[in-house]
Formats: sequence, C-alpha cells, structure tokens
Amino acid sequence: MPSRTISIERVFHALGDPTRRAIVEMLSERPHSVSRLAGPLDITLTAVMQHLQVLEKSGLVRTEKLGRVRTASLDTAGFVALQQWIRDRRSTWERRLDRLGDLLAEEDE
Amino acid sequence: MPSRTISIERVFHALGDPTRRAIVEMLSERPHSVSRLAGPLDITLTAVMQHLQVLEKSGLVRTEKLGRVRTASLDTAGFVALQQWIRDRRSTWERRLDRLGDLLAEEDE
Repeated sequence: MPSRTISIERVFHALGDPTRRAIVEMLSERPHSVSRLAGPLDITLTAVMQHLQVLEKSGLVRTEKLGRVRTASLDTAGFVALQQWIRDRRSTWERRLDRLGDLLAEEDE
Repeated sequence: MPSRTISIERVFHALGDPTRRAIVEMLSERPHSVSRLAGPLDITLTAVMQHLQVLEKSGLVRTEKLGRVRTASLDTAGFVALQQWIRDRRSTWERRLDRLGDLLAEEDE
C-alpha cells in the first residue's frame, strides 16, 4: 500500500454531505457496485460517480473496475487520518472527562 | 452534565471550515477569550463569535461569560459523537487492516 498524504480538509468536506455519508454507511456493510449504490440513494449514476470521486480523493473510498462493473469499497486512509486528528486534539476533553469521572467517584464514596 | 443530542451533520459542517479548525486547535491547548482568539486568526470579534456559535451548536466548544469577558473552551460532546460515528463504521476497514497485518506477518515468516 503506497503511503499517501490525506488532507483532513478534504475528509471533513467529503463527510459534510449527507449523500456521501449515506454512501459510506452502505459501504461499511459491504462493497457495492455504482449502480447498486445509485438505487437506494435515488440519484443518477453520474451523481454517484461524482460523490465517489470526492470520497476517493479524501481516502475514504476506493473504487475498482472489473470488466464493465465499477465497485466501491471503504478505504482505510481517510478514516485513519480522521481518527488521528481527533486523537491529537482530545487531550483537553479527555482530561475534562477524567475530572468528571473523579467527581462522580467522589460522590459515590 | 445534561444529555444532548449531537448532530453529526453539524459536527462535520463545523469542522469543514479551516478557521473553525484553527479555533479548535487553539482551544485544545487551553481556553481562550474571544479577543485572544481573534488576534492570531486575524478576523473580527464578530466573525469569531459567529464561528464559536457554529462550534457551540455542534457540541465542540462551550463559551462562558465571566464579567465582561467571554471565554471559549473545548466541549466533549461533539468529539465523543465524532469518535462514536467513526467507531460504528470502522469494522470494515479494521478487518482490512487486520488482513494487511496478516499478509505482512506471512511475508516475515
């Protein structure tokens, strides 16, 4: 797997759209062909392809063409980047949660 | 802490903006007054307040007015919701990482 630079900007932009989140939901179950995605989303194949391109560029989805069928599946890179972004910033709120835990523990005593 | 419903839509929208991410970066270091946020961001106090409102509504930031100074700090709810959203969807890519790990382990043998 070649190392890639994921833009967190692109990841947030990609996931800010409800249709793209719906695509991610479907792909988190299993890979889908483009036409299988288009059906439940009630959008055109062209629209699906455009959303998939945005998701691919942000490292959240990969697509593969086998014969005449293009299949989309979840990619790891965007999710890893997103999780890392949260991890790098959560020190403050983790301390706060710890403090809340301490307060609750004190109340139990 | 009263339980709140966090809209993941709002969280992604809030974090899709580079200025709002910069605010989150600053607040992950420590709480800041609104005017202390405005300086390095080179935007007006009004603009900071608008960004803070978006961040507050998505549960990422809380603000508190003490005397004449409004201070912003990170909130936990939005980050917890974001992390939960990722956790709920990562089964697929975790299996994929596990599989990659297995392949690498086989190569080592």
